[in-house]
Amino acid sequence: MSRSLAIFGATGTIGDNALNLVDQHRERFRVGVLSAHSNTQKLADLARKYSPDVLVIGTSEGREKLRQDLPDFKGDILVGEAGLLAAAAHKVDVAVLAIVGFAGLAPAMVCAAQGGILALANKEALVAAGPLLMRTASDNNTQILPVDSEHNAIYQLLQVQTQETSHKSIEKIVLTASGGPFRQFSLADMAQVTPAQAVAHPNWDMGAKISVDSATLMNKGLELIEARYLFDIDPDRLDVLVHPQSIVHGLVYFNDGSVLAQKACPDMRVPLAYCMAYPERIASGVAPLDLAAQGRLDFEAADRDRFACLALAEAAMQADGDAPCVLNAANEIAVAAFLGGQIGFASIGDVVDAVLQSHQAGAVDSLEAIVAADAGARHEAQQQIKTMR
Amino acid sequence: MSRSLAIFGATGTIGDNALNLVDQHRERFRVGVLSAHSNTQKLADLARKYSPDVLVIGTSEGREKLRQDLPDFKGDILVGEAGLLAAAAHKVDVAVLAIVGFAGLAPAMVCAAQGGILALANKEALVAAGPLLMRTASDNNTQILPVDSEHNAIYQLLQVQTQETSHKSIEKIVLTASGGPFRQFSLADMAQVTPAQAVAHPNWDMGAKISVDSATLMNKGLELIEARYLFDIDPDRLDVLVHPQSIVHGLVYFNDGSVLAQKACPDMRVPLAYCMAYPERIASGVAPLDLAAQGRLDFEAADRDRFACLALAEAAMQADGDAPCVLNAANEIAVAAFLGGQIGFASIGDVVDAVLQSHQAGAVDSLEAIVAADAGARHEAQQQIKTMR
Repeated sequence: MSRSLAIFGATGTIGDNALNLVDQHRERFRVGVLSAHSNTQKLADLARKYSPDVLVIGTSEGREKLRQDLPDFKGDILVGEAGLLAAAAHKVDVAVLAIVGFAGLAPAMVCAAQGGILALANKEALVAAGPLLMRTASDNNTQILPVDSEHNAIYQLLQVQTQETSHKSIEKIVLTASGGPFRQFSLADMAQVTPAQAVAHPNWDMGAKISVDSATLMNKGLELIEARYLFDIDPDRLDVLVHPQSIVHGLVYFNDGSVLAQKACPDMRVPLAYCMAYPERIASGVAPLDLAAQGRLDFEAADRDRFACLALAEAAMQADGDAPCVLNAANEIAVAAFLGGQIGFASIGDVVDAVLQSHQAGAVDSLEAIVAADAGARHEAQQQIKTMR
Repeated sequence: MSRSLAIFGATGTIGDNALNLVDQHRERFRVGVLSAHSNTQKLADLARKYSPDVLVIGTSEGREKLRQDLPDFKGDILVGEAGLLAAAAHKVDVAVLAIVGFAGLAPAMVCAAQGGILALANKEALVAAGPLLMRTASDNNTQILPVDSEHNAIYQLLQVQTQETSHKSIEKIVLTASGGPFRQFSLADMAQVTPAQAVAHPNWDMGAKISVDSATLMNKGLELIEARYLFDIDPDRLDVLVHPQSIVHGLVYFNDGSVLAQKACPDMRVPLAYCMAYPERIASGVAPLDLAAQGRLDFEAADRDRFACLALAEAAMQADGDAPCVLNAANEIAVAAFLGGQIGFASIGDVVDAVLQSHQAGAVDSLEAIVAADAGARHEAQQQIKTMR
């Protein structure tokens, strides 16, 4: 029997890869829901190809355009955030949530309440609302499977653990980091970094914001926070290892000295195939890893002195509550200011630090509380940036 | 409740490591049976320390010596092969079988018929009698857990697989090989290798015979054959990867592009702890793997032209039946002849090849058939060596 799929963020990279897997396994998947923020042209093309039941687009103008482009389309075309939430409540077997940023939080919460599999490619939902999201999923028998390569790696490895015994034999969960383009830069060199340098990432093709996060290692810090909630693991048992080739994605250290690791070519279809077919495995079309051709894998410790954002994220993870949400919001504003030329690269961490310092701790017990913490932190970050100019 | 242990080959390296784990977890294990081939002094010391129910020693003279050394010992002291088989039939929760060579086959068969866990550190039992041993274990609910680092790695990784789905998503199982001391030697250099050079192994401390097998890569070939039966996997899906640091022990390649790997410091307590506490995990006292300090891991393809023994083992694995038994027997004789100065290093493969060529294929349906195939191959190998001198 084929599985029905919803793809939120269908016109982005994750959407491309998920639909590539659908193309490879047409007998296994059918597309129920496709959403896009603004790319009506591409969404119309996808609708023609996959005949979903529901489309979602950002604006009413977008809907008009889709109606014109798709005169024979019989399904619903929903609009904006309300449309997105309605579509998230549409029953599917697997929802791939690839909406970028804080906007993905509410749809993630709705998906988590539907049962089935939520293949989560949005970072902010777990960072800002981890405990709430995990509880919602657990209460509704929704299986949250991480699409991020690192978390997907750990998820796979923990299947061993679940079968054998409990968390008590886990010493440490380690996410790898490419180290970003400034892995070998001195602090002085980093102060001079331009936005153009920061968005050139060696191993993965991605947007400007995530590229900057990779360069500051904030991305890895956010991933630690995600892992903390996703795997219900104590922050003291989470660590980062710099691994420039991005072949090893994650490692689980056990008390007997065994370390289990997941490796793969850096291609999103590997974790996506895992999520979409879980608990089976399906061919992904990704070339088999050739370690002999690769020749060597390198590892080094992450340097918290040069990469202050990693240390800040770890501190927010330890603080728990709404600190991760505040960290994430402050970082978004700081990164935008850096990309806009308002602050230097090294000041991204300064802004985040200042906002965290001035923050009054709160709980993560409702979506409203999180939205308020997020908005407050964004405002505070803007204020901090003004004092810096 | 504590687990009872039998350790066959208690005075060797595996025995030392197993008993070190007992020392670390006295509340968890009690020693029921200890056997030694000839080291009565050490066996007596162990008997005083662990108070087992049963001791086994190679000869009647050995028993006399033990009786004198242990005037207060109340348990049985058994002798020779018959004593070993009787001790193997002694009911324990975990039997660690670390008897070296073909002599381990019959005790392994008896252990496999007892239920519980057979922690198997003997290579020949699986190589020569794989199908028979696995069937015996399966018929008697005995769980065979491999102590060899490489197979233990794969066993751990396949726990994921068992839970998720069937063998059908496994593309390949790969065992790593250090490459031995002649990894970078040319064929011409290898022809000049002396026994003293061959027994110096960079990563593991072991006996002369296994050291030579590591140098020829026959050891890895025998391990492929073990894996073939232990994991019931098609020979075409088994491969070897040279990895000089011996940190990654085994890898499982899935059809979706994911590769799961097990890593650990090269210390036998890691796999032994896994076997002894299975399905729990216990501390082994082995230092946690520090990949940042390790810095790099290297990988290269195994060269069948320079390492003919690996190709011969793979051919015997493909041929199935008693070919692996014949390969193993011929290799033992050839290695002894090399160590005795009768043939050169490169001739080890020639002897094995000649014996396999002249061999009439037989089935592995009884211990008698295997013993006969083994004896026949040894005789034929001796004949081949005579023609070479």
